[in-house]
Amino acid sequence: MAQVSQKLVKVEESRRFMIDCFMAVKVPKEHAEQQADLLVAADHRGHFSHGMNRLEMYINDLDKNSTDGAIIPKILKETPATAWVDGQNGLGAVVGNYCMELAIKKAKNVGVGWVCAKRSNHYGMAGWYTNRAMEEGLIGMSMTNTSPLMAPTRSKEAALGTNPLALGAPAKNGDKFLLDMATTAVAVGKIEIQRRKNAPLPDGWAQDPSGNVTNDANLAFETGCLMPLGGSEITSGYKGFGLGGLVEVLCGVMAGANYSTHVRKWTHAGANSEANLGQVFIAVDPNQFADGFEERMTDMNGILRNCAPTDPQKPVLVPGDKESQNMKEVDLAGGIQYLPNQLQTCDNLSKRLNIKPLQFI
Amino acid sequence: MAQVSQKLVKVEESRRFMIDCFMAVKVPKEHAEQQADLLVAADHRGHFSHGMNRLEMYINDLDKNSTDGAIIPKILKETPATAWVDGQNGLGAVVGNYCMELAIKKAKNVGVGWVCAKRSNHYGMAGWYTNRAMEEGLIGMSMTNTSPLMAPTRSKEAALGTNPLALGAPAKNGDKFLLDMATTAVAVGKIEIQRRKNAPLPDGWAQDPSGNVTNDANLAFETGCLMPLGGSEITSGYKGFGLGGLVEVLCGVMAGANYSTHVRKWTHAGANSEANLGQVFIAVDPNQFADGFEERMTDMNGILRNCAPTDPQKPVLVPGDKESQNMKEVDLAGGIQYLPNQLQTCDNLSKRLNIKPLQFI
Repeated sequence: MAQVSQKLVKVEESRRFMIDCFMAVKVPKEHAEQQADLLVAADHRGHFSHGMNRLEMYINDLDKNSTDGAIIPKILKETPATAWVDGQNGLGAVVGNYCMELAIKKAKNVGVGWVCAKRSNHYGMAGWYTNRAMEEGLIGMSMTNTSPLMAPTRSKEAALGTNPLALGAPAKNGDKFLLDMATTAVAVGKIEIQRRKNAPLPDGWAQDPSGNVTNDANLAFETGCLMPLGGSEITSGYKGFGLGGLVEVLCGVMAGANYSTHVRKWTHAGANSEANLGQVFIAVDPNQFADGFEERMTDMNGILRNCAPTDPQKPVLVPGDKESQNMKEVDLAGGIQYLPNQLQTCDNLSKRLNIKPLQFI
Repeated sequence: MAQVSQKLVKVEESRRFMIDCFMAVKVPKEHAEQQADLLVAADHRGHFSHGMNRLEMYINDLDKNSTDGAIIPKILKETPATAWVDGQNGLGAVVGNYCMELAIKKAKNVGVGWVCAKRSNHYGMAGWYTNRAMEEGLIGMSMTNTSPLMAPTRSKEAALGTNPLALGAPAKNGDKFLLDMATTAVAVGKIEIQRRKNAPLPDGWAQDPSGNVTNDANLAFETGCLMPLGGSEITSGYKGFGLGGLVEVLCGVMAGANYSTHVRKWTHAGANSEANLGQVFIAVDPNQFADGFEERMTDMNGILRNCAPTDPQKPVLVPGDKESQNMKEVDLAGGIQYLPNQLQTCDNLSKRLNIKPLQFI
């Protein structure tokens, strides 16, 4: 992130501001806190696209009643290891936390909890939900479908979302393996950054309207056809497409939610219809298999981090290391540094919702 | 595949030949059949790298007693939803079939079956095991770790295997979504093919000894450092690396098997030590969630196949379509067309093991 502002916002203050915003559109305090915890955690980790950046969109959806901020999810069907949940169009974090808690309870009883939700909303970073499982010494997984933005290999139109998946596994002394990734090569945010910089896109990120790879960031942004992880067919983009499909099968299709092109188009202005996203939350108890999971996880992380690097200035990172580093930097600096346009959005929100403006250190 | 030979081998004859080979190195008939069924299915689908191509390696391992062809897997720990299995160094297909049957049984009882095996061997194509789950109307998943061949992003040495993952989901009337992919950009076999053709490699497939991308197929083959799905860091290769890690966590680390660089080096000549691979087999009953799963799966497959193609001559394929097409072509032709060097290997094996040579149509 470019150093464009010296104004830092304490993590606690960012959270306070978001809670105030949610409560101003009639979200009960407890739900507002859950949603704010999710968003501020993303900013803390340096995932700005999934943090306060999403606040206005959520507020717009709540304001238009296309999301119901007060609702509590409902179990529709259950076995000792599974549950099918109706999110009842509640806030993504509320549905997600509910489902993961349920998965954790089941994993503690029978080794695995597999919880599938329909009628959910945008649930932020997938890795958030795996954290709760890791706190209990479990492995957590989560996936969600999203609005169509990825062109299947050979297609010139989008038919799947960025469909992220996350897996978190605990190692010793707070170390972990935490993978949290979209199944597209990049998220839309990365295209936006190149666009602002007036820089070209590398091959394999996005398509033009005729379905060919484009290096033009403006054209890519307008076309809205991201390429799957792997890029073109010759570099195995069909695998990234397949992974996006895997997420769709386990989320939208399995949950009986919207899926593929049935999911509404992405909108920042507030949608007029319910999103009805599908999500899955899985917890697995490693103690039901070989003893000493965390020791082995620590050993594997060590092997990976100690691989001889191609560039000695760039050591190998285990998934999650970059985010842990960002958190340390924020803690050291004493706060989060937001981009000026984000601060402008906050200013607008505080006026619109009549709440105390965001305070700086 | 180049049309280099007109000699076709009936599927049944390929299976007969492989069973004879296994029985010649003292594998009991039932186990020989399981292993042959797996291998001939790969050839039938056009995955030649995972079919008869692997026969000699298996025979060498059995001959040197580094795999025990007679052994039956053993359950070490169990809950209604999970099992930890000791493969006892048996044949990969025998361990895999055993574990998937167990996962299916558990999924039918409690919705999910999650079975993790240690002390397994090379188990062929991961998608084989998901087929059994689909036959029962379930979703099947399987993953295995393998010998180190993938360089983590930023590393100049290999620390994870090609670590494949598979997910199979049934649609109506025998249609399906069957993803079966290595988490590297390509398998070693693809490098070998470019090498034989004296053709360069695309960017993103493999590294040279200094850790940089190489287009030299010979150098790539000698170096043995495949790149993860996504290729370089700029095209998000760290996601493919993360996926390879995810497979390792759920297989080697969870099972208490060998993992990462602890897995023995790949050898065709027959290894002197036990492989002790880790594998996971998951079955999920979609009927424990929303009704009508197969109808929605059919609908989604239709949406994907009907996306407007970039090149009208190349329609969009759902994962598994290419393999179904290969099977139809083999059935139409009446047999499988192997490459001459494969037929030479079979000839050598028949002499070495004193069994009836492979017959042609």
